[in-house]
Amino acid sequence: MLRIILLASLFACAPAAAGDLIVEKREFVTEDFRTFGGATIPRVRVGWEAYGELNEERDNVILVTHFFSGTSHAAGRYHPDDAEPGYWDAIIGPGKAIDTTRFYVISVDTLANANAHDEHVITTGPATPNPTTGKPWGLDFPVVTIRDFVEVQKRLLDSLGIRKLHAVIGASMGSFQALEWAVTYPDRVERMVSVIGAGRMHAWEVALLETWTRPIRLDPDWRGGDYYDHDRPLDGLTDSLMLITLNALNPDFFEMQFPEHEALPDEALESIHGGFAVTDWLEQRARERARVSDANHVLYLARASQLFIAGHGAGHDGDLASALARVQAPTLFLPAQGDLLLRPELAAEAHRLLEEAGHSSTMATIKGPMGHLNGIASIASQAERIERFLEN
Amino acid sequence: MLRIILLASLFACAPAAAGDLIVEKREFVTEDFRTFGGATIPRVRVGWEAYGELNEERDNVILVTHFFSGTSHAAGRYHPDDAEPGYWDAIIGPGKAIDTTRFYVISVDTLANANAHDEHVITTGPATPNPTTGKPWGLDFPVVTIRDFVEVQKRLLDSLGIRKLHAVIGASMGSFQALEWAVTYPDRVERMVSVIGAGRMHAWEVALLETWTRPIRLDPDWRGGDYYDHDRPLDGLTDSLMLITLNALNPDFFEMQFPEHEALPDEALESIHGGFAVTDWLEQRARERARVSDANHVLYLARASQLFIAGHGAGHDGDLASALARVQAPTLFLPAQGDLLLRPELAAEAHRLLEEAGHSSTMATIKGPMGHLNGIASIASQAERIERFLEN
Repeated sequence: MLRIILLASLFACAPAAAGDLIVEKREFVTEDFRTFGGATIPRVRVGWEAYGELNEERDNVILVTHFFSGTSHAAGRYHPDDAEPGYWDAIIGPGKAIDTTRFYVISVDTLANANAHDEHVITTGPATPNPTTGKPWGLDFPVVTIRDFVEVQKRLLDSLGIRKLHAVIGASMGSFQALEWAVTYPDRVERMVSVIGAGRMHAWEVALLETWTRPIRLDPDWRGGDYYDHDRPLDGLTDSLMLITLNALNPDFFEMQFPEHEALPDEALESIHGGFAVTDWLEQRARERARVSDANHVLYLARASQLFIAGHGAGHDGDLASALARVQAPTLFLPAQGDLLLRPELAAEAHRLLEEAGHSSTMATIKGPMGHLNGIASIASQAERIERFLEN
Repeated sequence: MLRIILLASLFACAPAAAGDLIVEKREFVTEDFRTFGGATIPRVRVGWEAYGELNEERDNVILVTHFFSGTSHAAGRYHPDDAEPGYWDAIIGPGKAIDTTRFYVISVDTLANANAHDEHVITTGPATPNPTTGKPWGLDFPVVTIRDFVEVQKRLLDSLGIRKLHAVIGASMGSFQALEWAVTYPDRVERMVSVIGAGRMHAWEVALLETWTRPIRLDPDWRGGDYYDHDRPLDGLTDSLMLITLNALNPDFFEMQFPEHEALPDEALESIHGGFAVTDWLEQRARERARVSDANHVLYLARASQLFIAGHGAGHDGDLASALARVQAPTLFLPAQGDLLLRPELAAEAHRLLEEAGHSSTMATIKGPMGHLNGIASIASQAERIERFLEN
């Protein structure tokens, strides 16, 4: 179907040209990691990528924190013939908004990264061996939070002798990490950019995230999370990823892709099993992604997201306003038009609370038909704004 | 939790007072029912209710068509001590907007009604015996459409000697039936009211409806639809009903019910199994409803809804505009503020196409915090408008 090819091209680019970034995945290992919840992970191993050069003062660093379904592959290609570059390649690279001839750009795979079975991802979570037993952690892995993702990043930066961030920028779940940085380490963060973000989850978002976890728990192959010696629960994971994709897009996008949607395809009328082009597309896409994803990791990322409130209630009165009062960095919020997942009201709430506290904060809306995913697919439309924000 | 009690009271009313409607379920049986898809159902049995008296001319009839999770219990109580009356009791009754001292109000359980195991529901679908085999139809039951629901209602009205409808009014999936009536039998429908409705499904709605069906198919107890000799697939059905409830409400409602939502409940941080008040509430409510619901029936209603386009492509050019050109009745569309399921744009599309064809159509928005469910919970706010529309 031609339009699906057009969709793919929204995410893909032409093969690398001369001057394009070629990147490699690196590994960071740290021991005795104490989680926010008070558990200990004896050994944390995560992947990371960097674009550009660290200057002598080590003060030209921009940290990019990734979204729920994302990885540290924010820009560039592993090989010149990779079909797709990192997800924000439109704004990260030589001469681009986040200019890698000036900045040293770092991104780190989170704990319990969703793409645990992707060869380019290094993560520590339920699917990785517990050093104590030699077997995968499964659900013995402790609940981890956005704060924990930040702490792992901080350990990596400390190991590189980096004390200041010129900026931290992230989309969606990455925006949670970016804001958590600005609240928890205000003296280390000079600028914060929240793309399709939020200051905290409200009850509705907690409920929506829960629906992503339930197909996994329903799949008999899930086996209470202890499936690593058996087939993985790919059917439940596929259903979960279908929900995630649907929630991350806007009806306008579906209308563009399936404009002549036939309400009465013969198949769907003849058999309760017959499908529709749109549902076949959603399922096929989800099933492909399920191959490199880990079901338990999706549960852990959903929980980390459900638990998110900037500052995580520590070091202040526990509410969002008093957390945001700690922020020193100028902040830029970029919610997306038609975002049905992290509604623009959520970014607006954080922006408003910062302004009410006399803080310097800016907000602008990303336009486009893709809803939440405008924050990835339409980020180029904000390139100039981001570039200016990084200069000030 | 006090607020949950408040929620319940949104749907419930005080026990019946003198003059309140006491209603009874009746049964209608019809043979050799030919579906829109060309299959034959040898025997159709459905429940129906009526409020008020049929006049001698048999021209004071208002047909109320029910929504996805609803039944023909639109108003009144079966017993004076019933906790809750029918879902639109606020506007149907003596002296109310749909005045049962003037009108004879009829409502009919659809084919494959979702609440097949509710003692007050009579329906024919996968859970009912196939006369040919004596066993439940299961997935051998033919795919049925909104048109088929209308045809069953028409057979009942014909049997009562009713040739004209003073009005047909329905909410959500009931609005599909109301509009289908006005398109398919324009000479029988004098007024049409579409509440939280649509003229057709677009690709996004087809995809969203599909997500309601997938937890059912994923539950091993579903057994490919052939579960009637075993435990019913209540876990999958519960997950499906959780999605339906979540999609039918607006975030504002959750904020009202769970305003002090704690982002960091100890339980949820300590164990991946720990829950949140909002998710516990959603699950408990869904599990209770699953007891009287049938999983296959939910699949069939989702399919009927996915297939909906007014007129079903028959007797005109197949598109929505040419279907609506057949309508003779004045039309009233009442979409709801913050409806994330059948977005107000859908009602607006049908209303606009009617106006462009020179038709008399009115549209007004139902206000309230409940999103799609404003069409039920906040219908009293439209009582005067509906009453006026019925007078003209």
